[in-house]
Amino acid sequence: MVNFRVVTYILGFLLFIEGLFMMLAAPVSLIYDNSDAETIFYCSLLTVFIGLSFFLWNRKCTKNIGKREGYLIVTLGWVVFSFFGALPFYFTNAIPNFTNAFFETISGFTTTGASILTDIESLSQGILFWRSLTQWLGGMGIIVLSLAILPVLGIGGMQLFIAEVPGPTPDKIHPRVRETAKRLWGIYVIFTFLEVILLVMGGMNLFDAVCHSFTTMATGGYSTKQDSIAYFDSPYIQYVITFFMFIAGVNFALSYFALHFRFNKVWKNEEFRFFLGIILVFTLFITLNLVIDMKKPLEESFRESLFQVVSILTTTGFVTADYLSWRPFVVVLIFILMFFGGSAGSTGGGMKVIRIALLLKNSFLELKRLMHPNAIVPVRFDGNAVNQQIITNVLAFASFYLLTFVISSIVMSTMNYDLVTSMGAVAASLGNIGPGLGAVGPMENFAHIPVFGKWFLAFLMLIGRLEIFTVLLLFSPHFWRK
Amino acid sequence: MVNFRVVTYILGFLLFIEGLFMMLAAPVSLIYDNSDAETIFYCSLLTVFIGLSFFLWNRKCTKNIGKREGYLIVTLGWVVFSFFGALPFYFTNAIPNFTNAFFETISGFTTTGASILTDIESLSQGILFWRSLTQWLGGMGIIVLSLAILPVLGIGGMQLFIAEVPGPTPDKIHPRVRETAKRLWGIYVIFTFLEVILLVMGGMNLFDAVCHSFTTMATGGYSTKQDSIAYFDSPYIQYVITFFMFIAGVNFALSYFALHFRFNKVWKNEEFRFFLGIILVFTLFITLNLVIDMKKPLEESFRESLFQVVSILTTTGFVTADYLSWRPFVVVLIFILMFFGGSAGSTGGGMKVIRIALLLKNSFLELKRLMHPNAIVPVRFDGNAVNQQIITNVLAFASFYLLTFVISSIVMSTMNYDLVTSMGAVAASLGNIGPGLGAVGPMENFAHIPVFGKWFLAFLMLIGRLEIFTVLLLFSPHFWRK
Repeated sequence: MVNFRVVTYILGFLLFIEGLFMMLAAPVSLIYDNSDAETIFYCSLLTVFIGLSFFLWNRKCTKNIGKREGYLIVTLGWVVFSFFGALPFYFTNAIPNFTNAFFETISGFTTTGASILTDIESLSQGILFWRSLTQWLGGMGIIVLSLAILPVLGIGGMQLFIAEVPGPTPDKIHPRVRETAKRLWGIYVIFTFLEVILLVMGGMNLFDAVCHSFTTMATGGYSTKQDSIAYFDSPYIQYVITFFMFIAGVNFALSYFALHFRFNKVWKNEEFRFFLGIILVFTLFITLNLVIDMKKPLEESFRESLFQVVSILTTTGFVTADYLSWRPFVVVLIFILMFFGGSAGSTGGGMKVIRIALLLKNSFLELKRLMHPNAIVPVRFDGNAVNQQIITNVLAFASFYLLTFVISSIVMSTMNYDLVTSMGAVAASLGNIGPGLGAVGPMENFAHIPVFGKWFLAFLMLIGRLEIFTVLLLFSPHFWRK
Repeated sequence: MVNFRVVTYILGFLLFIEGLFMMLAAPVSLIYDNSDAETIFYCSLLTVFIGLSFFLWNRKCTKNIGKREGYLIVTLGWVVFSFFGALPFYFTNAIPNFTNAFFETISGFTTTGASILTDIESLSQGILFWRSLTQWLGGMGIIVLSLAILPVLGIGGMQLFIAEVPGPTPDKIHPRVRETAKRLWGIYVIFTFLEVILLVMGGMNLFDAVCHSFTTMATGGYSTKQDSIAYFDSPYIQYVITFFMFIAGVNFALSYFALHFRFNKVWKNEEFRFFLGIILVFTLFITLNLVIDMKKPLEESFRESLFQVVSILTTTGFVTADYLSWRPFVVVLIFILMFFGGSAGSTGGGMKVIRIALLLKNSFLELKRLMHPNAIVPVRFDGNAVNQQIITNVLAFASFYLLTFVISSIVMSTMNYDLVTSMGAVAASLGNIGPGLGAVGPMENFAHIPVFGKWFLAFLMLIGRLEIFTVLLLFSPHFWRK
């Protein structure tokens, strides 16, 4: 049987933490003299109170957390966080419609960044701060999830990294999660802090610098400006954000090594080199297209290409240019990038670079297998032969990802969105990117989507964020059986 | 070393056969009093002569045909056939541009059906007959290839059917190919003949009936009319063609069993049931959409839905309605159908229903594997556990198919075709369907594609038709090594 009491116990604790963070938005609101401070404070108090009640009520439960409990906590955690996280938006009347408030919040916690707001600058600083903070917290959550929890649960071929993750490698989840989490969060905080300093040095005010650093490191992409990063007409600021999006899209375990000057471990990492290669190739092609075909100046072309490529690849979703107004060639490249996603163990979404790399390697090796049917030809990664079970899992993941993409595109098309908009909205939600194509492109927003569509896309953000299997398992008979 | 002489020997023989078939178009031309009869006759004479020369010149070669020779014959065969097959179009001035003539011919032999013609009815009967015949011959070729040659070469998980194919199961390719081919071609001819009779009974003239029967059974889709099947404003004719497209999309081995009254073997075949299921579900959805959303009469909605679904699923590409003018929901469904393709061992292209079925089964079983990591959970098909090697191969195939689709869409977009047209043209060529989306939709044609684009799409038709691996292997170092 599933131990629901321990699930409630942990969720209560997490909710309590969320409430404390939410409380931070109240003084921010006060500083900027917003009228929202009081409402935000009451919302956070309610969250803290309910969280604490559940925590204390179940404190005597047996503390054994197995696979089933792990899956439940992870999935319900994101949902519960989003429900309570939506309260400040709703009660301050910043987003007076609850569906919209929930959409905006889960888009935050899943670090997607798809927004229903049509006039972001009209929101108070307190609310904007909370909006950015949801992404930063979501990023924290995903780091622990992908580097500490999922490997133990055996999800999505993540076992591959178990050796790479700094920290002890015990049998139980508990001590492992705690140790790993501490070290990775340290890095996360350091990078966020560094970005704030560099942005302020570039002339950005402290509030915007903090908010954008939150959403950069989470690869979230919420901006305090309607025009996103295009608002800051400064190459310096754009390069700084590009750099930190890049860092946030790399496995945080590698950043840990880099900060300990063990650069050879970084460079020897095949996923990292794939990640770098994708950025270079796509940036090169798009830069050339902008320079030759659209006669743009070289530096501007390079900067805009690099920014957009890194932003989409890492699934951040910041924009400095309307790429849909560029040539079809660029639009197709951007659309393809939407499926890659960041590295495993980063805050990025999507299918993850390592899975794409394994898929490609496995496919090309099949040519060798066809010529030598009796030879054993394993996929090698980082110098080691990869277990066939992991390959099968990665392939199943990719199939589910594409299947979800296909079925969801059909669902969106029933709302009379054309092929491009349907596919764009789904790819952007499932990949936790934010802006998509067509009517949900970088210069548009998700406000016009019908209520059902918003809940549906919110669900896609969730299953994309949780590596699909985590959520699918809950709907599978194998999960509930015996 | 590759035995090039035996490759030339076999290709010479096949070319000789092609020449003989081409010769048939000359009397057809004479009957209808066309001026093209003489030119067609000379073209066929040239083909026969060159084929025979190569055949006789190499008749003393060692006759051992291994894997390498098999791959080369299959790939080069289609290319050589198309070069010579283009001669009548070119020299009669029916298609005065050689790129266009080659495109039209390889689109015929690969049973794709994508056309560069803007006024089909202006062509002479002799030329139209040859155009339809290329598809019929291509269909014959693909039946032998997929049911007799590929299983022996170990391509694309086709080993799965080796037990299903009627005929002896020896070690050598030679007797197996001959026996299997004979039986399957018998069925192919019978069905073609039946369709001709049924179409003539419906009021179609003999010439059109023969041409359309050729291209139906090959799932080719070339019509003698610019408006395709929409020209024949007869529900009877549309239902007859639907039925034979369906038959042509089913594994011909199953038709063999059905003709021997062993219906239980047909019904127990899982791929067949998947195939049927896809047709039913998609037809139901589209019919409902047409009836409810577009207020069309029920029978017409059903007929048009069924026709388009079967035509696209079997990769025939006949049209009775401009589906792009329907709701986005339908367009998305049609686009998705373009990837399924017919059954393995049919004349249909695409990824093949069985591969999709295996992919889905394997993915859902992964959920079970995650909950029971130590259990061995094989995919079962037709009641048997499927070898893991076959699953890996199918997954590699699917990856290559999608990779080819993605890269090719990028290539098409460099010619400034928008995302939808780029993807549509590639999906339709790679899947051997014919009409795509956007500017290459069912009411359009491929004439406006630049020269490079035409050669590129022709290449896609070839690799799509030959199950990708066959062609890719020729470009792989593993093929040429040692």
